[in-house]
Amino acid sequence: MNSKIIGLDIGGANTKLASSDGKIIELHYLPLWKNTRLPEVLKEIAQRMQPEKIAVVMTGELADCFEDKEQGIRFIKSCVDSAFEPSKVSYINSMGRFQREAGDIRELAAANWAASARLAGKEFGDCIFVDVGSTTSDIIPILSGEHKAGLTDFDRLCRSELVYAGTLRTNLAALLGKVKLERGLCRTASELFATTADAYLLLGKIDESAYTCETADGAGRSKTDAIRRLARLVCADLSEIREEEIYEIAGQVKEKQVSALAEAISEVAKRNGLKKIAAAGLGEFLIKEAAERLGFEFISVSGHWGEEISKVFPAYAAARLLDA
Amino acid sequence: MNSKIIGLDIGGANTKLASSDGKIIELHYLPLWKNTRLPEVLKEIAQRMQPEKIAVVMTGELADCFEDKEQGIRFIKSCVDSAFEPSKVSYINSMGRFQREAGDIRELAAANWAASARLAGKEFGDCIFVDVGSTTSDIIPILSGEHKAGLTDFDRLCRSELVYAGTLRTNLAALLGKVKLERGLCRTASELFATTADAYLLLGKIDESAYTCETADGAGRSKTDAIRRLARLVCADLSEIREEEIYEIAGQVKEKQVSALAEAISEVAKRNGLKKIAAAGLGEFLIKEAAERLGFEFISVSGHWGEEISKVFPAYAAARLLDA
Repeated sequence: MNSKIIGLDIGGANTKLASSDGKIIELHYLPLWKNTRLPEVLKEIAQRMQPEKIAVVMTGELADCFEDKEQGIRFIKSCVDSAFEPSKVSYINSMGRFQREAGDIRELAAANWAASARLAGKEFGDCIFVDVGSTTSDIIPILSGEHKAGLTDFDRLCRSELVYAGTLRTNLAALLGKVKLERGLCRTASELFATTADAYLLLGKIDESAYTCETADGAGRSKTDAIRRLARLVCADLSEIREEEIYEIAGQVKEKQVSALAEAISEVAKRNGLKKIAAAGLGEFLIKEAAERLGFEFISVSGHWGEEISKVFPAYAAARLLDA
Repeated sequence: MNSKIIGLDIGGANTKLASSDGKIIELHYLPLWKNTRLPEVLKEIAQRMQPEKIAVVMTGELADCFEDKEQGIRFIKSCVDSAFEPSKVSYINSMGRFQREAGDIRELAAANWAASARLAGKEFGDCIFVDVGSTTSDIIPILSGEHKAGLTDFDRLCRSELVYAGTLRTNLAALLGKVKLERGLCRTASELFATTADAYLLLGKIDESAYTCETADGAGRSKTDAIRRLARLVCADLSEIREEEIYEIAGQVKEKQVSALAEAISEVAKRNGLKKIAAAGLGEFLIKEAAERLGFEFISVSGHWGEEISKVFPAYAAARLLDA
């Protein structure tokens, strides 16, 4: 394992990088949907790190700036291939294998979790690999080293192998149609007024440095800013709602997300006869709670490889697979 | 009634104008949250129409560009007062009455429905006034000419007098956590990938000219564009999902919105002993379905005053109240 073999995980909002020895970890906030700086940043990485080999996984092709996934994949591929010497670049497909020259380009769509599953299967054996990131939650059954998940995001949404909620970017209105307050149930506003990052900041589950996405209102990332955003979820400002009630709403966000996660894990577990979870991502704390509720064995990728690697696990897994 | 008395309804996304004789109706798409053109447009209206009297109602103060509602109200008021001669301007408060000089400025927050309720009460007697607009649904009980609703959006969200869903701008992810497909239930993506305007365009409930808000992806307003956006709700592109399934999803959007509306109307009806609905707004078709399910009497503002007036009813009501 060395620092010259790197993995890149190019998502719609973030691009993550890890070296196969785990010594280099980078997270770049690089939204693809507006004047993206992806080409420049990849070139800068190529010059600065001079990697010998690069393994690439992606999910960014779903960004709604692309007409369809194939267009998105071609765009991402062209950015990578103009930054690095193409002979040094390998792409990992949705089976978690390196793509052959002749392979269908669409197999590269949404494959970052497949790289993770390949490494998790080698390391932990049969298990459900769960990765809760900034935006989504992957719930991947692994048997005899092979993942048994659907091959597209659409398939996985239908099979409870993808829950489209994460620890930072998720619109709270998509999680909670109503919140419980002292005075009773209250409907929520369906705007993008607050995100999960606001709730988990208030609950002390992430700190400001982990709040790496944009805020819903473009204001700051302090607790006061987050409280103001959460108040807007019920169309209130701080003269109308008490701070304790805001914290209660934040607690309900976590409760809802843990129960949605547990429901999905339980379904995947039953289908595959699995009761062991390997958990990665910024949202390991949510997976741990879900595992406890289900009474499942719980392995933490943070505990095994360290917290920083857990947060960029698909990139690390890609690098490791290339270095095997 | 004449064309020189106008009502203005200044919302977060749209500003609407009507004259008290109903002959002039205008809708301006004027988002307050980014470099708003509100000051210029109001000045242009003042010069072009030379109104004798202006009645103003607002809801735009909740826009998240403002720190709190008072700041929002002051901003909107300053725009109005620099466009029109202040002595000609009257503001309507959340009791549906003209605001006295000494009144608390916060009483002007979210008062557009109060003007509507005042006029509806005069015209239709005791009823539940329901206005489903582009973004929200107001459900206002009226007894003996006075509305009995909570005075703030927060209060009304708690009392089922405000359902934060409309016919154009509502994020489908906030309405539907799962959709039913032939293959079974499918979770949805929690991004802003598609809005109610896309669903109602496909269902033929609105046409392209009524699609007056921005599209979720910045692309066009054709049915093909809308189909593409709805496919993204389940992370699919058009090679993965059949068009008939997209139309089924659109149908589920309507079903969910009608049932949420019926639930809220039913609660308000019970609390106030009312069984008659007066319906206004672009979403009258949703209210009609909800009324049928509940077996309530249904009066259409479109039928009574015309479709164009129904769509800008708070502005029309404000003008009429000033002309009384």
